[in-house]
This record gives sequence, C-alpha cells and structure tokens, in this order.
Amino acid sequence: MPVPGPGYSITVRLEAPPSASAAGDLTSAVGRVGGVLTAFDVVESHSDVIVVDITANVLSADHAEDITKALDTLAGVRVRKVSDRTFLMHLGGKLEVTPKVALRNRDDLSRAYTPGVARVCQAIAANPDDARRLTIKRNTVAVVTDGSAVLGLGNIGPAAALPVMEGKAALFKKFAGVDAWPVCLDTQDPDEIIRIVRALAPVYAGINLEDIAAPRCFEIEARLREQLDIPVFHDDQHGTAIVVVAALRNALRVIGKPIEKCRIVVSGVGAAGSAIIRLLLRKSPADIVAVDIEGAVHGARHHLDDNLRWVAENTNREAFSGTLHEALVGADVFIGVSAPNLLGAEHVATMADDAVVFALANPDPEIDPLEAQRHAAVVATGRSDYPNQINNVLAFPGFFRGLLDAQAHQIDDEMLLAAANAIADVVDDRLNASFIVPSVFDSAVAPAVAEAVRAAARGEEEVASAS
Amino acid sequence: MPVPGPGYSITVRLEAPPSASAAGDLTSAVGRVGGVLTAFDVVESHSDVIVVDITANVLSADHAEDITKALDTLAGVRVRKVSDRTFLMHLGGKLEVTPKVALRNRDDLSRAYTPGVARVCQAIAANPDDARRLTIKRNTVAVVTDGSAVLGLGNIGPAAALPVMEGKAALFKKFAGVDAWPVCLDTQDPDEIIRIVRALAPVYAGINLEDIAAPRCFEIEARLREQLDIPVFHDDQHGTAIVVVAALRNALRVIGKPIEKCRIVVSGVGAAGSAIIRLLLRKSPADIVAVDIEGAVHGARHHLDDNLRWVAENTNREAFSGTLHEALVGADVFIGVSAPNLLGAEHVATMADDAVVFALANPDPEIDPLEAQRHAAVVATGRSDYPNQINNVLAFPGFFRGLLDAQAHQIDDEMLLAAANAIADVVDDRLNASFIVPSVFDSAVAPAVAEAVRAAARGEEEVASAS
Repeated sequence: MPVPGPGYSITVRLEAPPSASAAGDLTSAVGRVGGVLTAFDVVESHSDVIVVDITANVLSADHAEDITKALDTLAGVRVRKVSDRTFLMHLGGKLEVTPKVALRNRDDLSRAYTPGVARVCQAIAANPDDARRLTIKRNTVAVVTDGSAVLGLGNIGPAAALPVMEGKAALFKKFAGVDAWPVCLDTQDPDEIIRIVRALAPVYAGINLEDIAAPRCFEIEARLREQLDIPVFHDDQHGTAIVVVAALRNALRVIGKPIEKCRIVVSGVGAAGSAIIRLLLRKSPADIVAVDIEGAVHGARHHLDDNLRWVAENTNREAFSGTLHEALVGADVFIGVSAPNLLGAEHVATMADDAVVFALANPDPEIDPLEAQRHAAVVATGRSDYPNQINNVLAFPGFFRGLLDAQAHQIDDEMLLAAANAIADVVDDRLNASFIVPSVFDSAVAPAVAEAVRAAARGEEEVASAS
Repeated sequence: MPVPGPGYSITVRLEAPPSASAAGDLTSAVGRVGGVLTAFDVVESHSDVIVVDITANVLSADHAEDITKALDTLAGVRVRKVSDRTFLMHLGGKLEVTPKVALRNRDDLSRAYTPGVARVCQAIAANPDDARRLTIKRNTVAVVTDGSAVLGLGNIGPAAALPVMEGKAALFKKFAGVDAWPVCLDTQDPDEIIRIVRALAPVYAGINLEDIAAPRCFEIEARLREQLDIPVFHDDQHGTAIVVVAALRNALRVIGKPIEKCRIVVSGVGAAGSAIIRLLLRKSPADIVAVDIEGAVHGARHHLDDNLRWVAENTNREAFSGTLHEALVGADVFIGVSAPNLLGAEHVATMADDAVVFALANPDPEIDPLEAQRHAAVVATGRSDYPNQINNVLAFPGFFRGLLDAQAHQIDDEMLLAAANAIADVVDDRLNASFIVPSVFDSAVAPAVAEAVRAAARGEEEVASAS
C-alpha cells in the first residue's frame, strides 16, 4: 500500500469528549484506515467538550472521506469541518506584485510616476538598451504555457495550468531571486503563440516555455529563438536535460564507467527525451537507443516526424529495431521519461553489470525503484520520497539567474553543459549511489549554476567580439 | 521663472573645507542659480575636509549642470559625483513578483508545487470558475499598452512605456491592494492587440488599457468588451471621466449652479474628452460643445470619424460652428483635455459669471491657473503644485478593487457614476473653491470608490437575476 505524502493533507476539526482516552482513540482511528497523522492541536477546551484539529496526510479524496468517517463514528465525536490544506494554500493564488519603491508622499509619487517618470521613458526611447537597466526587464522572465501538457495531466488548458505556473514563478524567486510571471495563453496555435510571445517580449529578459506538448514545442522554441533577442528556454526539454546529464555524470563516477563505453537506452522521445538525447550526444556515449511506444527509433521506421528523424539519424548506430525490453539487454544506462510501470526487476537484470536506472515518469516511474535496485547499481526517480530525485528545480532558477546577470541574448549547449557540471560538482565528496544529485533545498546549487552560466555566456561574448 | 519640482531631483556629492561658512556658501550657490535645496547631509567629517550630499530640485539637465558648476567653482570645493534621484529610483524597475506562500521545506513544496498542485489544476479544469478562487486571477489586473500615446510624450513604443506601466501597477497595489502587471505590446495593430489580450485573459480578472492612442483605443476597448468575460477599463477615458465628473459635481456645489443650467465647453475630443462627454451626458447638462483643433464639432462638419460623429449627434444642440474662443462666450464650464496655452484670462472673462475652468492638459495646462482664477470661480488642473488636482489615481485603484471584489464581468456607466459620486462625497464639509477633490493621498478615497462599485455591481446582478 502506498504511503500518503504531504501533497494531499487534510485538517479535520472535530468535537470530542474531554476524556483521558480521547486523543488515543482519535489518532488510532486515523491510523486504522491508513492516514498519516502529522499534527494534533487542541483549539478549545471546556469541561464537557474539546475542539481538536487533526491534520493527516491522505492518498485520495476517497481516503480523506474514509478517515473523516472513521473519526465521526467514534463515540461522542462530531466532525465540524474538513479542510484540504493544499487548497487552503492556493486560495487567492500564490503570487503578488509588490512595489520596490516607496510611495509615501507627493515627492515619491512625482519621481516614480508623473512627471519624473517621463525622463526615464525618454531615456529608454533614445536608447532601448536602457530598458534592461531602468525597468523590470532587468530581472523578469515570462513563464509561458498553452496548457497542452501540464504535469502528467495532459491538455487541461491555460486556466487550469495557472497553479503550476504560479508555483514555478514562486520557485524562481525563492531559489534565485528571479521575478517570473505566468503567461497562460488561451490558444494552442504555434503561429499565434509565437506572435504573442514576440509582442510581449519588451517586458521580459527571458522566456521560459513550460508544459507545451511535443512536437509543437520544438517549432515554437526554434522559431522564437530565431526571432527574439532574449533567451528562450523550454524547461521540459532543457531543464530536464541539464539535471539528467548532471545525475548521469555522478552515477557513472559512482560505478567508475566512462560514458564513452556506455550504451544508453532512452524511453520516451517527447520534449524531455529528445532534449536529453541531444545533450547526451555532446558527451560522446558509445551509443544511444531511443525507444517510444512503437519500439526503437531507427532510420527505416515509417512515419518519422522531423524530431524522430533527427533522433534516428544521430543515434542507434546498429539500427536496432526491437522493443524496449529487447533494447535493454546489455545496456549500461536506462533513462525513462515515458510512462509508468513499463519494466520489472527481470528487465533490469538483463542490463550490463552496474546498471544505471533513471525512471523519471511522474508521478509513477517506469519501474518501482525498490524493484530496480535489486539489479541496478544506481537508481534515480522524479519522486521526493526516494533518494536521487531528478528535479528541474535544481536547474531553472540558477540557469535564468545566470542568463539575466549576463544579459544573455541566447542559450546554447555550452551553457546547458556548464549548468549540468555545476550541479554535479555541488555533490563533491558526498557522492555515493544514493546521493548523485544535491537536494532541491541545497542553497549552494542555484548560485553555482548561475556562476557557470555567466561564465559560459562571457566566454561566448569574448569569442564573438574576437571574431 | 518656473519652480523646480521633486520629479527632477539631483544629489551632488562633494568635498568642501570644514569651515564654519562652508554650509552657507554651498546652499547659497545652489539658490543663486535657481535650484531648490531639499537636503544637506554631511556624509564624512575629517579635520581637513567634509564630504557632503546636497540634494536639490532642478528644472532640466542644463539646470542640473549649472548647479553642479556653481558648486564646483567655489573655493576649496570639489564635486565627486552627481546622481539623478529619479533614475536611481528606477534602477532595476519598480516591481517584483513575490511568493505569498512559504517554500521552506519539502512539505511546502509538495503542496505549492508537485504533486499537490495537480489536484488544484484538476479542480479548475473541472470547474473553470474556481480559477478566481484558487489562482492569482482573483486579484490580478493587466495594465495593457501599445506605447502609442504615453503621457504627453506621444508614440514612444512599448519598451519606453514600461516605466509608466510599472508606476501604475505600483499605485494599484499601494492604494487598493490590487496586483497589476505591465503588458507592453510590441504591436500597434488593433486586431493583433485584441487577439493577444484575449489570449492572455485566463490569468487576469480585469484589463486596464493605458496610453493607447485615439481613435484606435475606442475600437480596441469596444471589441474587447464584447469578447471578454472580464471588465475592460481604459484609464485615459474612464478614469479621467470619473474624476472630472466628481470634481465638476463639487465645483457646481461651490457656486450653487445646477448642471442642468450649464453649457459646458470641452476642448479635446480624444480618449479623455470623448469619455468625459459621454459620462457628462448622463447628468443632463443644458448643453455640451466639443471643440477640437478644427473648431466646434457639429453634424455638418466634414470628415467626422465614428467617434466625432457620435459626439456631433449627441452634443451641440444649436449646431454652433465657431472657434474655441467663440464657444467660450457665455459658457458656464470649460473642460480642457487638449493642449497647452490655448486660453488667456481675457477668454475666461467672456464666460458666464462664476465660471468653472478645468485646464487638464499635462504637464502644461490650457491656461495658467493663476491667470484663469482672475475671472473664474473654481479652477482645477492636472498639476500637483496647484489646488484641485484632477488625478486618475483617485479613481482607478478603488474602481478595480470594487470590480475584483464583486467578481464583475463588465463595466457600465452606473459604476462610473457611482465612483464619481464616491470621490465627490469624500470631500464632504471640507468643500470650498480650492478643495473640490480629495488629495491623492487621502486613504478614504479608494475604499469609498470600491464600495460604490461593489454596490453598483451587486445592483446589476440583482436586476439580471430578477429578469
């Protein structure tokens, strides 16, 4: 039975008799139906009744109801109200727009607004580059989605995607001081999305594309990169690729195998899989075999779109054409960004010695990590309740911090690789099979990534100015 | 000679001898060339030298240089650095995006972001109205411009307009707790602007159009109102109209003349003028004569666009066809939203007794208010250095506060009139010829406007649900 996590947590307010056994009765009722009790607070206490808030992690709405019923049917207990703490946290949204300047009196007003602001406007009209100095453009990133591929939820549209984009923006600020703003677009037409992002660009120094379905996301990203003079990052592609490459570098250090000797099987060739493959190729692995729902990707396969065609041309040297399970035989590394429960321990057993398994499908991985570790030397997932969490939060805040500081105009593979190395290096001598990436709360990560990206951006400017 | 205001303020850091007379020498040097000294701060003090920051209001860049030279040429004085306080205030922009939720640990993260956030997304996908409860949409307004008519600066484009939009957003938050975000669009095509604002709408509960040139602004506003289910406000039109109607109500109370007996001359028939006329017509004045650069607007004039045609059909009962100066003869009220220095005292002298003159062109009004008051009973301007400042800040923050609280889907004239009445009422028994509108810093204004708008919105809902 899976264990309830803090992502779904309820607080039940109830009246109970003030007896010595009440607390024990309540907590054991929660435990009996599988709830994980995390807090017990007495809100009021009278001679005849106590009012208690019981907070517990649960698995689902049905499970929350089971727990509520188990409490409500205890003798003398009456449930008053059940609150969902996740929903409470989201009430009114998770972001606010705060002035950085005081507006206490008329003098403040006449500098921040009319008439003083007119001189600042004129300075920017005369020298557009000043916008990066004198406006929010200096530190502001758009988090752009069309709501077409949100988390594992699919095409739920722009309004329903907003809570995720708000969360992303909150993480940008928390981890790297970047001001990020959600742009949830009520269109899924690539031409329209491109036109809109171009029109919005004056306010932003970077674009973070998010949760846009493949293959549309490739075209949108590529065309925006051509048309804009600010960097365009697609987190599902580049953020994931950075962290996977970082984790793989450390995993291979743990087992002492050079990447040049590794055959890598990548399951899933959407946004994340394609970007992982592109970045891994820069590290010269022995081979990569990409597999999707129709099996291995190879040049003779029918119906290859542009993305799959590129993958076929740049991977799979032996034109292997079997299934995922067949591809795994003898492979050194498995990287899954695909679907839940594709593999069992018996498939990992067919891999080479010291196998590395990254099962990153969310929320349920390609293989239960406890199963995988029976035959693999290093196992990682996207989950927070297992070691080695591959989480984009390690990459995107620091990456954009570096881009903004360097006033970068574009992103390239050198920056992505520099960021991956920086994340891997933070682990340093703490490296072991259960610690190949730092914690998402390690405050050293974002500054290290930012510094690496700044240095990479400077390097390119020097090359550009020297040529 | 005009008096320097705080909108242009410099700080000169200099070294001076530590003599008893140094302070006097420095301050009188500033005064001699017309600077207004506002602060004198000794930053360092040594036996042989003091370091002083002298802050002064100045008129222009040339004037700042005059003052710097006057200081630098004093015996023993050396200017180290001159800073422009307005530019300093704008460095890095005036807004930041701040998380409202704590992200201290993994539990917080799993509620604000994955996996917990997925349930919030699903709730909104199932019931789109929940976006107003569970996301920033509840309290967020877009401040949308194309940069085509910014302040008095004209068509300076979206990047140069951003400092104004940031200032506007700061005022929204400061005066009414509204989260407002600048949307500066790199297009001036109405169709494109409309498409973009429609696509952006999922994140916002209201649209504030700003500094978009007439007549394009009318079409954009009208079509957006048709197509969106959130209110669309054009501050240059509706904000100005609200405050003018409020000020006029109180001006007419001062002189004891009912609006039904007033002939009103409106100079300027752009965004502001047209909206003022439309709202004033709801108050049944004896007549309105609108005048633009070609003279009075009347039905027989050639080349009337849709906006002027509407004005011609609804004003100027006697089909008057003369100049602004001719129109003023015998008029009770002059409202100028046009251009500087169109009138002299001699023109005001031709108006009816107890004339009301609102000369609102910015930064230089249609007539010097000191000239106007020689013959007018009540004079108002847009300037902060004269009594009766007609400033949109009195209207837009509270207006949107009310709209958001009421979850209003549209704006109508009843709401605009209710807001105007609320502003006028705040003056209460403080009313006199020099106090027809409250101060922009009067903290009673925004709540009063918000309450009036909420009540008006509720009234409509009741009508809608009863019908």
